[in-house]
Amino acid sequence: MINKEKLTELNNIYKTELLENTLPFWLEHSIDHQYGGYFSCLMRDGRVYDTDKFAWMLGRELWSLSKIYNEYGNDQRCLDGAKAGAVFLRKHAFTKEGDVYFSYKQNGEPLVHPYNIFSECFVCAGFAEYYRATGEEWSKELAIKLHERIQIRKKRPKGIWTKAVDDARAFSALNTIMIDFMLFIELKDIVPEYELMPILEENIHRFFKWHVDVPNNRILERAIPGGGYDFDHMEGRLLTPGHALETMWFLMKILHELGNTKLINTLAELMLHSINYGWDEQLGGIPVYKDALGLMGDKLEANQRHWWVHLESLSAMLLAYKLTRRQEFWEWFIRIHDYTFKHFPDEEYGEWYGYLDKYGNPEFTVKGSKFKTYYHLPRTLMCCERWLNDLYLSLPDTTV
Amino acid sequence: MINKEKLTELNNIYKTELLENTLPFWLEHSIDHQYGGYFSCLMRDGRVYDTDKFAWMLGRELWSLSKIYNEYGNDQRCLDGAKAGAVFLRKHAFTKEGDVYFSYKQNGEPLVHPYNIFSECFVCAGFAEYYRATGEEWSKELAIKLHERIQIRKKRPKGIWTKAVDDARAFSALNTIMIDFMLFIELKDIVPEYELMPILEENIHRFFKWHVDVPNNRILERAIPGGGYDFDHMEGRLLTPGHALETMWFLMKILHELGNTKLINTLAELMLHSINYGWDEQLGGIPVYKDALGLMGDKLEANQRHWWVHLESLSAMLLAYKLTRRQEFWEWFIRIHDYTFKHFPDEEYGEWYGYLDKYGNPEFTVKGSKFKTYYHLPRTLMCCERWLNDLYLSLPDTTV
Repeated sequence: MINKEKLTELNNIYKTELLENTLPFWLEHSIDHQYGGYFSCLMRDGRVYDTDKFAWMLGRELWSLSKIYNEYGNDQRCLDGAKAGAVFLRKHAFTKEGDVYFSYKQNGEPLVHPYNIFSECFVCAGFAEYYRATGEEWSKELAIKLHERIQIRKKRPKGIWTKAVDDARAFSALNTIMIDFMLFIELKDIVPEYELMPILEENIHRFFKWHVDVPNNRILERAIPGGGYDFDHMEGRLLTPGHALETMWFLMKILHELGNTKLINTLAELMLHSINYGWDEQLGGIPVYKDALGLMGDKLEANQRHWWVHLESLSAMLLAYKLTRRQEFWEWFIRIHDYTFKHFPDEEYGEWYGYLDKYGNPEFTVKGSKFKTYYHLPRTLMCCERWLNDLYLSLPDTTV
Repeated sequence: MINKEKLTELNNIYKTELLENTLPFWLEHSIDHQYGGYFSCLMRDGRVYDTDKFAWMLGRELWSLSKIYNEYGNDQRCLDGAKAGAVFLRKHAFTKEGDVYFSYKQNGEPLVHPYNIFSECFVCAGFAEYYRATGEEWSKELAIKLHERIQIRKKRPKGIWTKAVDDARAFSALNTIMIDFMLFIELKDIVPEYELMPILEENIHRFFKWHVDVPNNRILERAIPGGGYDFDHMEGRLLTPGHALETMWFLMKILHELGNTKLINTLAELMLHSINYGWDEQLGGIPVYKDALGLMGDKLEANQRHWWVHLESLSAMLLAYKLTRRQEFWEWFIRIHDYTFKHFPDEEYGEWYGYLDKYGNPEFTVKGSKFKTYYHLPRTLMCCERWLNDLYLSLPDTTV
């Protein structure tokens, strides 16, 4: 039952989880006070288990701390934390071509070359948000330059490290679409609309015309450019429900701001299908990967339950509910919320587990890794907190 | 209790598993009668779930079918199967530099460049064994040429696809040592001893001086050249008990043939430590990866039970028992045997599951993949069948 009381209760849960149960963990354990930057490899209790630093993890935490600073009362601890990341990245991130090394030693010496463009994407978003927090022009300029490099490199994101034989089997990758949607959201007050809009339109076209498996309303992780399916190979059959939902809520948010109601309804339908095929009716939760024909892929962690999958699904369901008011989305939101808050938070040390087994028990108890930092969690908590509040305000007082 | 009756019973199990329960599955399902070569992506019932072909899988199955042909009565079906792989590889495997593409479409068109040397290693071993089956000189010549290329490339095995910044953090990788031990065994009647011995000696030195974590008697997957440990980073803490045991039984076999008893005893001690820290006392079975400090690595499948880990451990324990007659090794062999034969074989469709969860239940039911073909299984079954027979012959008749 949706009423003001329930919305208030949920809003409090998301806000408390953000500001009291998770943010302090990262402020306390992740910031490197010696060299700047962030540790992301954190044990359950916050101990660092690897001192290396990973650019996309740095960019993501920079984004989160800046965003919380901007949106939740200008907390100086967040700004100080953001600065530690921004200064480290400004000093150590870049190759002489202006690309971003994938990883660094604790002191900033580069370890791994920029063999893909994801480091650039998240460092770009981080600098943009840090600019909004501080007004630092250099941070804005770096975000703009990175966006330009990403647009140049995205046709061949692995560059000289591309292992695939050129043109042997061309796939359009969903993650490059998602990244452009994300950057549209993050850069729309920094990069001119006449630059961003054509990129957006191209990606909307790719998404709907290539990546939607129309007969089954599923979103393919890798699609054939121009349309059609390649189901003879596991690459072409890969489904990542969490990824599909993340991509779709980005786009839904953009379409809402652009006032495109028709496509929102199409997206809502696809989201409903995604959560329906993503959710495991037997064991609960959403596996990371599925196969379009129910066969097999090459991801051995496919059946695990990962934090980000559930968080992005929460954002997707709540935004879809907010914009369509279809009851199914609210029910899915509550169902995923119950699973997520039952299994992921660590009552003892705070913060959330990242990796559960298919039964919902921690497969590993770490709080951060080469892949997990403070990003999906605060973003979802912020989004849901705000959207729950919007819903509250939209209800007439009589429903109290 | 070790007696002739028990040895006969076990010998029958291994031989039956080889020739009746697993070989027919691969002869029936993996051979591509249209284009030659092998499918390795096979569902539980043998259906092909991906028609792509992977060089290291092709080389491995070529080796196994040739070996079974050579050692078990010259079965024509094995020779025909081997030929399908050898001809496909001869025609499609090579780049113009003589390296081996990582993967191919069903028809042999290359998909992925030779971004590492493992394809070369297993194709080399496959051609060598096929030469022994057929006397085909071209097959021998290709094995010799591949071995030369491997020796040139192994200092920088990823070549132009190397993502690590040069010299930023040098590690010696256990897998390159293992490969050279394996190739020593496979090529010793093909490549002159004066070429192989210096390579062997260098690798024995690297293994004992760099990769043995002396205080704890553990084998490090990545060691610091020259010695010492890097336990601040998960890379430097990685332990793969199955890999360590595989490497050690290769070396033990070599040392036995060279008559080096002293090092065999040292190895036996290390093997015992490896299985002791590898075995999960609580749940049974051997996880794929462990962390030297009990912290965390970056392998999300770490806790799964993989077929090859248990098979290589069986070979290691039985060979160590055969050569040292220490009772602990026999007990470990039986313990691992019981777990392995209880959990991995598929009673319904034949062949073995590859991927169990930590509780010993199939995480995936496939029989082959991008990583699993017919290799570890027949090799272990052949080795154990022979070594059990050797043990039988070594017992006096009075123990019957």
